[in-house]
Amino acid sequence: MFPKNFQKLINHFSDLPSIGPKQAERLVLYLFKQSREKTEDFAQDLHDFATEVRFCERCFHLAEEDNFCAICRNTKRDQTKICVTEDPLDVISIEKTNSYQGLYHVLGGNLSVMSPEEIKRLKIDELIARVKKEKTQEVIVATNPTTDGDTTALYLARTLKPLGVKVFRLGRGMPTGGDIEYADGITLSSALEGRKEM
Amino acid sequence: MFPKNFQKLINHFSDLPSIGPKQAERLVLYLFKQSREKTEDFAQDLHDFATEVRFCERCFHLAEEDNFCAICRNTKRDQTKICVTEDPLDVISIEKTNSYQGLYHVLGGNLSVMSPEEIKRLKIDELIARVKKEKTQEVIVATNPTTDGDTTALYLARTLKPLGVKVFRLGRGMPTGGDIEYADGITLSSALEGRKEM
Repeated sequence: MFPKNFQKLINHFSDLPSIGPKQAERLVLYLFKQSREKTEDFAQDLHDFATEVRFCERCFHLAEEDNFCAICRNTKRDQTKICVTEDPLDVISIEKTNSYQGLYHVLGGNLSVMSPEEIKRLKIDELIARVKKEKTQEVIVATNPTTDGDTTALYLARTLKPLGVKVFRLGRGMPTGGDIEYADGITLSSALEGRKEM
Repeated sequence: MFPKNFQKLINHFSDLPSIGPKQAERLVLYLFKQSREKTEDFAQDLHDFATEVRFCERCFHLAEEDNFCAICRNTKRDQTKICVTEDPLDVISIEKTNSYQGLYHVLGGNLSVMSPEEIKRLKIDELIARVKKEKTQEVIVATNPTTDGDTTALYLARTLKPLGVKVFRLGRGMPTGGDIEYADGITLSSALEGRKEM
């Protein structure tokens, strides 16, 4: 019923999480009604995004133009600390607090909810390799304060402490069952300050 | 905080109706995690959409590759009937019923909710010109069965009847206060069959 290119775009939007087919139709109609230039910009930016944004080779945060992210390229960051998160969006939230000057390591998920194949894709081996090779003294595990995140933290603590580093969990201030990405800056700051050795 | 191209894409998604900034971040992260080929396809299809989908020059429905939509190009359609809708999505919904073989005219909105400048952009003058020039005998006003849609229908009836055409409103079967786009096929079919002269 829809023109071919219209239908294709509806399918792309329907494929996105949390967007249903009817909402996808409305979104595409909205794009159709706005200026053609704006939609062409969107297409160009989406293309650039697909070809230029990549994972940092060291910490697996978002990188661009280079194989390393802006944080890893910044030699002024404290090279003795690694903050471990589940997701790049968690890194962004922590960076916004301006309370942390160390490095990051993005796992890409947590241990409990995943199948064995997915667990293999978590960047845990890469974290161990970094701790062995780099000047790491502290690892701050900033997985979400949920059962799954706690399990992951416990596993990392057991694995990393024998390597001679101190392992911390984000401290008090985080409400249990909450989500790091959505926490406000003050809560995140106090959690960073009140970190607890495991 | 985000890489430049990542942030640009978040902005594009936040500009869409019903998508907030946090949901936009999640959507872009989802795109980032899926295969690069799939996102490049999305970009290409969005580009083709922006350059190839246009308004039909005759009825203002969605057209592609040509200046006229598939319905206007189909000479087997009943050229004596014009069904007037607010939106291209309403045309799609009516087409899905297979109950109507005539032509369409998409107004691009209704009278009541708009500013005077927006009302000027409604394709009412174009509809009058079509009724004068084409072999139209019946105009079926399929604006939504709301106060605004009824106002528009009444205005069209007063304007078009002096031109010697019969003007109909979608008949019983449509629940008052509902939305044509979301109506089921049977309701729409019975509304088409039970159309009422104004």
